[in-house]
Amino acid sequence: MTPQEIADACARAMHVEDATSRSLGIEISEVGPGSARLSMRVADKLTNGHGLCHGGYIFILADTALAYACNTYDQRAVASGASIEFVAPAQVGDTLVAQAVEQLRAGRRGVYDIRVTNQHGALIALFRGRSATIKGTLIDNEVEKK
Amino acid sequence: MTPQEIADACARAMHVEDATSRSLGIEISEVGPGSARLSMRVADKLTNGHGLCHGGYIFILADTALAYACNTYDQRAVASGASIEFVAPAQVGDTLVAQAVEQLRAGRRGVYDIRVTNQHGALIALFRGRSATIKGTLIDNEVEKK
Amino acid sequence: MTPQEIADACARAMHVEDATSRSLGIEISEVGPGSARLSMRVADKLTNGHGLCHGGYIFILADTALAYACNTYDQRAVASGASIEFVAPAQVGDTLVAQAVEQLRAGRRGVYDIRVTNQHGALIALFRGRSATIKGTLIDNEVEKK
Amino acid sequence: MTPQEIADACARAMHVEDATSRSLGIEISEVGPGSARLSMRVADKLTNGHGLCHGGYIFILADTALAYACNTYDQRAVASGASIEFVAPAQVGDTLVAQAVEQLRAGRRGVYDIRVTNQHGALIALFRGRSATIKGTLIDNEVEKK
Repeated sequence: MTPQEIADACARAMHVEDATSRSLGIEISEVGPGSARLSMRVADKLTNGHGLCHGGYIFILADTALAYACNTYDQRAVASGASIEFVAPAQVGDTLVAQAVEQLRAGRRGVYDIRVTNQHGALIALFRGRSATIKGTLIDNEVEKK
Repeated sequence: MTPQEIADACARAMHVEDATSRSLGIEISEVGPGSARLSMRVADKLTNGHGLCHGGYIFILADTALAYACNTYDQRAVASGASIEFVAPAQVGDTLVAQAVEQLRAGRRGVYDIRVTNQHGALIALFRGRSATIKGTLIDNEVEKK
Repeated sequence: MTPQEIADACARAMHVEDATSRSLGIEISEVGPGSARLSMRVADKLTNGHGLCHGGYIFILADTALAYACNTYDQRAVASGASIEFVAPAQVGDTLVAQAVEQLRAGRRGVYDIRVTNQHGALIALFRGRSATIKGTLIDNEVEKK
Repeated sequence: MTPQEIADACARAMHVEDATSRSLGIEISEVGPGSARLSMRVADKLTNGHGLCHGGYIFILADTALAYACNTYDQRAVASGASIEFVAPAQVGDTLVAQAVEQLRAGRRGVYDIRVTNQHGALIALFRGRSATIKGTLIDNEVEKK
């Protein structure tokens, strides 16, 4: 398998178990080694106490992009921490896109930057996440389950 | 009104518009000037690609605690950024508690630390959020709507 | 003046008052609108309790790059906060380079990413800093002092 | 040795190699298991381009407090990352105090919160640092060197 094929297979394996993405309508548009692009439409139920998209759902979209990007090498990894800057509000009906780019991958540790933009290309949030690999693979796991 | 009464009235006003807390079953246990304690049961739909509570929902709980804590002075405030350390996984069925404590309130700016623990008192996440005040009050808003 | 000339003039005005850069041997290699590249040789006095460059000096280099990058519009700005990931140790004698890139500039707020690398191009640290504008300009200030 | 005696011995071993603290006049006032209190007078050479204490030196003080606090168990540890909120400026002549409190210690990982205040008790900065243990001890090391 090529690195791209491995990344694609990992994303499929991740998605099988990924109840959060399904319940929020998060779509996995594209993955590659160390990268991922996801999108999510802001549904009514995602609003906060000020009538805008709850920042927590913007975080979830970015955090999910981190999860897919750091799990593209067939080595399970989890987020160990993250920081987010909320730049502009997102409105109900907006389609948000999260693009994850790998900044560091060394030993068990990874750092990924995710930019969240809306359908007009406006910056909504900047996210930096840290990952740590754990035991286990993804593709084997997918096969075992069959 | 006492500071505690103001905090309680702000929380009620916040909750009216707070679709996220209702849809996730987040309960506002207690607020005070600059503080808030919230709880959330980890439902099945909150799981991630590894079968555990998606870190994003732990973030949402903490971020919601930040929102309630920084909106206890009848001056609207929003989160401008946050960082989170994921310490231990949360399981389906766990009840998570987020306790927000004010570290700083100066000018338009606030900093709040939120500890998320489970029903056994084990630390699940450490969150530090920043708030900025915006125009508008909460209690007046509640009255206007009547 | 062009934006580049303004950036250069701001950097000169900053440098006049910048005792820290002089005492640490930080050189301002290049600035542009929203960007800056600085370098610093790791001197003996910058070591920590483990015999390596103290992480705090890596932070200072990055933080100084932030300061120069966010002060390139002739509008004074200061760092309001920052986060840093220490990736690899720096040794005495290394020459570190910090490259600052603007991620956001909106209203009074800016976000800048700084990568610190050594003379071999190895990544030493990832830094993300936030700036806030304050009253005052830089170039006028320089003129007033003459 | 009691935990307090171990902490004290670790701090002494750290200090022997700690050129940074000596050159900046950082004093180690007190350590305990997981905690440390340090102080530093803001000297002229620590000023930045705006005539105030360079935020980087406030970071160094806090980062050094982190280093002493996470090295109190006779297990070498290093900072892996940190975030800082700059709250108020520090002036030349101020005496800054950094108090480190352990928030988490699990496996190889630690999280420490450091508050930096001035001689009037005013909050200057909030710092949260992450540590990771590495191979080696401190007290043995001290003995070996004799």
